[in-house]
Amino acid sequence: MSDAVLRKTSSEVRVRYSETDQMGFVYHAHYLVWCEIGRTDFMRELGVVYAEVERQGIRLVVSDAHVRFRTPARYDDLVRIDTHIERVQSRAVTFAYELLRVTDDPVRLATASTTLLAIDEHGSTRMLPPDLLAVFRVARTGSQ
Amino acid sequence: MSDAVLRKTSSEVRVRYSETDQMGFVYHAHYLVWCEIGRTDFMRELGVVYAEVERQGIRLVVSDAHVRFRTPARYDDLVRIDTHIERVQSRAVTFAYELLRVTDDPVRLATASTTLLAIDEHGSTRMLPPDLLAVFRVARTGSQ
Amino acid sequence: MSDAVLRKTSSEVRVRYSETDQMGFVYHAHYLVWCEIGRTDFMRELGVVYAEVERQGIRLVVSDAHVRFRTPARYDDLVRIDTHIERVQSRAVTFAYELLRVTDDPVRLATASTTLLAIDEHGSTRMLPPDLLAVFRVARTGSQ
Amino acid sequence: MSDAVLRKTSSEVRVRYSETDQMGFVYHAHYLVWCEIGRTDFMRELGVVYAEVERQGIRLVVSDAHVRFRTPARYDDLVRIDTHIERVQSRAVTFAYELLRVTDDPVRLATASTTLLAIDEHGSTRMLPPDLLAVFRVARTGSQ
Repeated sequence: MSDAVLRKTSSEVRVRYSETDQMGFVYHAHYLVWCEIGRTDFMRELGVVYAEVERQGIRLVVSDAHVRFRTPARYDDLVRIDTHIERVQSRAVTFAYELLRVTDDPVRLATASTTLLAIDEHGSTRMLPPDLLAVFRVARTGSQ
Repeated sequence: MSDAVLRKTSSEVRVRYSETDQMGFVYHAHYLVWCEIGRTDFMRELGVVYAEVERQGIRLVVSDAHVRFRTPARYDDLVRIDTHIERVQSRAVTFAYELLRVTDDPVRLATASTTLLAIDEHGSTRMLPPDLLAVFRVARTGSQ
Repeated sequence: MSDAVLRKTSSEVRVRYSETDQMGFVYHAHYLVWCEIGRTDFMRELGVVYAEVERQGIRLVVSDAHVRFRTPARYDDLVRIDTHIERVQSRAVTFAYELLRVTDDPVRLATASTTLLAIDEHGSTRMLPPDLLAVFRVARTGSQ
Repeated sequence: MSDAVLRKTSSEVRVRYSETDQMGFVYHAHYLVWCEIGRTDFMRELGVVYAEVERQGIRLVVSDAHVRFRTPARYDDLVRIDTHIERVQSRAVTFAYELLRVTDDPVRLATASTTLLAIDEHGSTRMLPPDLLAVFRVARTGSQ
């Protein structure tokens, strides 16, 4: 086991005016956009070039998404997205997220998870490419 | 028990170009927007005027959202959202949704559920107003 | 000149909660989405199948957009989008829009125009296909 | 004339997957969201606290928006938004934007302008508060 193995990444976004709704909070669907920013950063850090995955004829589509909203985010909040891998299967990978408002005393805004499924050009599920599978497994367990 | 009691509503949306992403499918977060259209129509049919609820100092915020994606929706698809109430609690109500592509042989696009929590102006959870609670309970069980 | 020639179409959208912002109005960028719904309906009525245009290797991209906002739209408003063709050039077509709140006494919400440019797969500007050009010209002048 | 006077700010955004459409480019309406990020940063740099403006009973609403699209932005592009003030009137201020893809050889993606109008709680146009007017005028001309 190596401490050098990537287990978690942190991303930050500033809440945009366009993301608020008339209740004065961030409209709830936008949290899924932030989760995507989190896992994109995570994969980039892992060295996974998504365009390269697509060249192997594989696309990763969201098959399941779950968000628990704790405290509403507001305009101009700085939001941190902590991302890690929760589960790896032969055809799917599940990312988990913790969303926090960045202040001196950080507030948990939400927790979330999304499962991504590997499909080919015809939309049929496929095995994740072996190298990708290996990288995801290491990132989940922290051991090589 | 009365058959005249509202149990389910159906809403329709046409997929917008702005809702697609570069994979050629609808970007997943937009399904939550469609769910909101479904439950807004459902509440309107129940006779619940949301503006009236707000005048009683109550706001309904999404506290939990879960979507299972089955088949990707595409540009210009006609999507039907079937909405019903899954669970009623003193401070929360859970709506369930089935999303279908409208064709001669309808395809299930996704199933989803969202829980809405009653809060007051200070963000504290509150009891649902008694009349709203009663209406939701009847709509769930179909009995008065 | 024939009265049977299509000159204008009207489309309707119901304002979604997700389209509002914390000012309590519709966020201004969404008007461009409504304009796209207007011109998609217009082209459909003209018999232009956009997928067919793409099969000829032509894509229509927005090269210019201008919106004048008059009265803010609000949640749950019914909005009508009146669309017509303002100008046809060999490589571009300009659509004009009038957006109204549908009530007994309709209120003008905005006027807008967008120019679409024909490009090929490499992003170079191209002539509009002759049949498309002809259809757009008839729709603009009302004469055949 | 002082070089110390703020004339222009630069903001950066990374293109999100959710901002692309099935043509493989950024959907055009999102450029207006980026412009808003540009002018928010500009006002913040000027020391204008928008919440403070609202406490004086004034809201700034977009009354006119114009975008000229030059080169399509793509997923994962780093986009720089250069913002300056183009015109100041007693009741309105016009911001101008240049949007560039950040590379060794920057590419101009679009130019844009938006006019913001001062309104009160009833939606009537109002004079800009004197201090705000003064700050905007200095930012436009560069002289105090």
